[in-house]
Amino acid sequence: MASYKAPLRDMQFVLHEVMAAEQLLAGMPATAEVNRELMDAILDSAATMAEEVLAPLERVGDEEGCRWEEGKVTTPSGFREAHDVFTQTGWVGLSGDTAQGGQGMPKMLGVLFEEMIMGANCAFALYPILSSGASLALARHASPALKEQYLPRLYSGEWSATMCLTEAHAGTDLGIIRTRARPLDDGSYAITGGKIFITGGQHDLTANIIHLVLARLPNAPAGPKGISLFLVPRQLLDVNNEPGQDNNVTCASIEHKMGIKGSATCVMHFDDARGYLVGNPNEGLAGMFTMMNYERLSIGLQGLGLSENAYQTATAYARDRLQGRAATGVVNPGQEADPIIVHPDVRRMLMTVRADNEAGRALAVYVASQLDLAHFHEELAVREQAARRVALLTPVAKAAFSDRGFEGCVLAQQVLGGHGYISEWGQEQRVRDARIAQIYEGTNGIQALDLMGRKIVRDQEGLLASMVVEIRDFLAGQPDALNEFNAPVTAALDLLEEITAWVQEAAATNPDETGAASVPYLRLFTLVLYGYMWGRMVAVAESALQQAGSEAAFYDAKLKTARFFMARVLPQCRSLADEIRGGSAVLMSLEPEQF
Amino acid sequence: MASYKAPLRDMQFVLHEVMAAEQLLAGMPATAEVNRELMDAILDSAATMAEEVLAPLERVGDEEGCRWEEGKVTTPSGFREAHDVFTQTGWVGLSGDTAQGGQGMPKMLGVLFEEMIMGANCAFALYPILSSGASLALARHASPALKEQYLPRLYSGEWSATMCLTEAHAGTDLGIIRTRARPLDDGSYAITGGKIFITGGQHDLTANIIHLVLARLPNAPAGPKGISLFLVPRQLLDVNNEPGQDNNVTCASIEHKMGIKGSATCVMHFDDARGYLVGNPNEGLAGMFTMMNYERLSIGLQGLGLSENAYQTATAYARDRLQGRAATGVVNPGQEADPIIVHPDVRRMLMTVRADNEAGRALAVYVASQLDLAHFHEELAVREQAARRVALLTPVAKAAFSDRGFEGCVLAQQVLGGHGYISEWGQEQRVRDARIAQIYEGTNGIQALDLMGRKIVRDQEGLLASMVVEIRDFLAGQPDALNEFNAPVTAALDLLEEITAWVQEAAATNPDETGAASVPYLRLFTLVLYGYMWGRMVAVAESALQQAGSEAAFYDAKLKTARFFMARVLPQCRSLADEIRGGSAVLMSLEPEQF
Repeated sequence: MASYKAPLRDMQFVLHEVMAAEQLLAGMPATAEVNRELMDAILDSAATMAEEVLAPLERVGDEEGCRWEEGKVTTPSGFREAHDVFTQTGWVGLSGDTAQGGQGMPKMLGVLFEEMIMGANCAFALYPILSSGASLALARHASPALKEQYLPRLYSGEWSATMCLTEAHAGTDLGIIRTRARPLDDGSYAITGGKIFITGGQHDLTANIIHLVLARLPNAPAGPKGISLFLVPRQLLDVNNEPGQDNNVTCASIEHKMGIKGSATCVMHFDDARGYLVGNPNEGLAGMFTMMNYERLSIGLQGLGLSENAYQTATAYARDRLQGRAATGVVNPGQEADPIIVHPDVRRMLMTVRADNEAGRALAVYVASQLDLAHFHEELAVREQAARRVALLTPVAKAAFSDRGFEGCVLAQQVLGGHGYISEWGQEQRVRDARIAQIYEGTNGIQALDLMGRKIVRDQEGLLASMVVEIRDFLAGQPDALNEFNAPVTAALDLLEEITAWVQEAAATNPDETGAASVPYLRLFTLVLYGYMWGRMVAVAESALQQAGSEAAFYDAKLKTARFFMARVLPQCRSLADEIRGGSAVLMSLEPEQF
Repeated sequence: MASYKAPLRDMQFVLHEVMAAEQLLAGMPATAEVNRELMDAILDSAATMAEEVLAPLERVGDEEGCRWEEGKVTTPSGFREAHDVFTQTGWVGLSGDTAQGGQGMPKMLGVLFEEMIMGANCAFALYPILSSGASLALARHASPALKEQYLPRLYSGEWSATMCLTEAHAGTDLGIIRTRARPLDDGSYAITGGKIFITGGQHDLTANIIHLVLARLPNAPAGPKGISLFLVPRQLLDVNNEPGQDNNVTCASIEHKMGIKGSATCVMHFDDARGYLVGNPNEGLAGMFTMMNYERLSIGLQGLGLSENAYQTATAYARDRLQGRAATGVVNPGQEADPIIVHPDVRRMLMTVRADNEAGRALAVYVASQLDLAHFHEELAVREQAARRVALLTPVAKAAFSDRGFEGCVLAQQVLGGHGYISEWGQEQRVRDARIAQIYEGTNGIQALDLMGRKIVRDQEGLLASMVVEIRDFLAGQPDALNEFNAPVTAALDLLEEITAWVQEAAATNPDETGAASVPYLRLFTLVLYGYMWGRMVAVAESALQQAGSEAAFYDAKLKTARFFMARVLPQCRSLADEIRGGSAVLMSLEPEQF
């Protein structure tokens, strides 16, 4: 049975060789001391944690799941102990605000850490990752007093946090939520309402749980501009800031789900629960969305991490399993069959997952570098430009990593045949666990609509144009010798620009064209970005190969994988463009009763 | 909560209006009495069974699963009672040999029946469907004495049957199985060996279970030409042909699987178990494959049926769920949001599943009509031509229905957002249940290789050429007014022929090109066939629409769905062709250690 290994060498390749993290971070005072040595030490330590503490609990988390009894939730065997180890090493506060005890590490490192823990055991990883996300919302928007009271204990992992957005009738459309907040005399609020799908809403891992809850103040404007954000602790803090009296927060039940069974998905009731306003009244959604760019990337990494794990298992199986003979002649004459990795179609599956995962990892670090620039850079203009890039790429990364991650898990499951369908090898669990990343934190349909509508069709800031310039500049600087890699990317980029103009024009007269184009457009854009990432990886690998010595096979594999991507994946662009040109009329012509 | 409804009107449309079943069956003495009235009565009765007896047990089958205790397997609550109702109505023998008590119904009807029961509750449906398949192998290959002893009780459903092929080390590669058969003095054999992944290997539904087991005789040639087929009853028959003494057959355990949890997937041990030879020595695989064409179609229908069920649920949800507003203006001014069916991307998902399912259903009935011709027609030449068509299309139908069925379930799950991921609506179960159809009964990679290698590259019989002639003849006979539908199909067919020639030439010098092209080629071929099916449905719907009256909306929906298929699905052909032209070298260049 294969067991998860963090792909450290691949991660270092992307972080140091392709994205030159040390150089980028050195240019910003807040991250100047984060050098390559430190980053590698952190990655090593994270790998040990992922491989030795989290991966062994991947299956037990699925088999036992969480149990709900009279409002209490018990996590699977071993999760509490693992959480203790995890928090003692300080992982929850890795990217946290240093003023409150966080470690202030850059997101470029954070995404690789998150890929590992999501890949090793995503049901476990969701607890600390969502806690980190909620902490970020507090760090950006809460009052100094609230930050001081809560952030250090959240960073230490002593307490955890949740995001309470969805209600039974309101998921994508948060503008219609009904949970309400009534001002109390002491400046706090009484929160009343029901929330569903709350990850980690109740569990036994921490001494307190801090809920960030969206609710409406009295007389708030209707819709999304009338929503405020509140901090609602499960246990109220006493005068010494220790958890004391129970707040009126209950977990009514947990969901029975397709996967991530070790993660407690809770129905939460707030019944005049005491809460504290975070940020300005009626600006709760804005506050929520500042941390969404981080969270969405993390959820994308769930797909990527699981696909990497599934790929490793499929590869080990394909090298081992003897079945049939190679079409070009027996390779294993001493045995009754050849390993299935000799079969072209098994290769096709493995190469597809591999090419996607490596490009996805590079794009994750790239987007993270923009988040770091947007957060840490001293110059406003740089921060703003990076923030625009993040706005453009976040929906793509979230949807691409999770869609392709799910597809990767399905392919990797297929490699094992019937053995992929039974629980023994873990592949079927990874498919089930990956599926949710396409749905939560904004469905991938919503990501595509955000990209197509807000970021492309209604774009006032040249978001795409500046991305295109960057890619064209890169391509222009590449030698002719690498044309086999760069010419297809140029063609795909041309097509993207052409189809972008088509959608912009079509949407100008028919607003349905935006939504009709959105999902294939996001997929087309992803292929262009993955092509760009492969172009950058090829450029590095090609030159490293000249003097690689013992690592020649490593760099050689990059070129071969890029060649596969260009020949057999990137051509999908054409059909996606055709699909977009198919337009909205054929989608909208049926009456609802005709379905 | 939506509940499954057999799509009777759509089924009748395909069976009677598009495929003219009555006319085709009237031309063959064995089926001459199967008129439209009889077929409709059978479909109605099957629908009632599927909707009222099987669908209510879909979820309980998943939640309870099968239980194994000391060699005994207990099926989920209600399965026994449902099985009694099912068998009393005579469904197991629907297509069975009339000489042994079967009903001799055509496969054109059988595929629609199977789509219903697979769609309503596939875990249950697997028991009778696999039993029917094994019965077919007996009817074709067993001695008259064995047939008389076993077939009537199999058709009646009193006993059930299994196919025991796979061993732990031998799945796709049956040539290396190790189970052996030792001749006994009385002409029977002692069978010894272990089999895995045996559907219905043990259960509590019937009084006896008849295993069809692949094993090797002493001194049999190595490989697939040394495999024989044996009938091994769980309980041996006494002198009165009643189940008596236990045979040495045990169920050692059942698998924990991703889905189809109500279906017992068994590890079987045969320990000098008494068995009877079916067909000739060393021709067991050939015997097995004559019924494979039926079984593979049935397994494809598992994907199609589940996708139809998931589509119905998604449609009901999309009409009901209020979230957001239509881009073109509020449609539901009295309420806080519009139903999500107004959103183009929700439409994209629903239309994709719909267009696939309707084309798939038409292709299923088309393939079944060829099976009927191959089985029942009086003229040898007609039978042989139909058998060739079946050989060409069976791998396509199995892989296409199950791949696209799985993808359809995933899309239909996505329509429900987070509600699709929890068990409440059943969508996540359908995704899990559909997944296995891509894997068992020959993985879809194997189907593609069978198509590409045996049926196309090594084709000596013009299998594809005659199919192409049929499609071109149809297209040539269509009026210009329908050009919007038929021109894209013509273009796709041209591309298929072009790419076929490319693969044939490439494979002549490099045998890896066959496997490298196989999966995208099967997908491309599927699109052409679905285009052909839509062309035929359009031709009927267009003319029926002229005088449709109250059914105008029904026929109108056919045209609109066809338009969607042509504009937004069929264009995938181009990229698939590009992917094939990408060739095998980029797949095979990595050394196994580089993965």
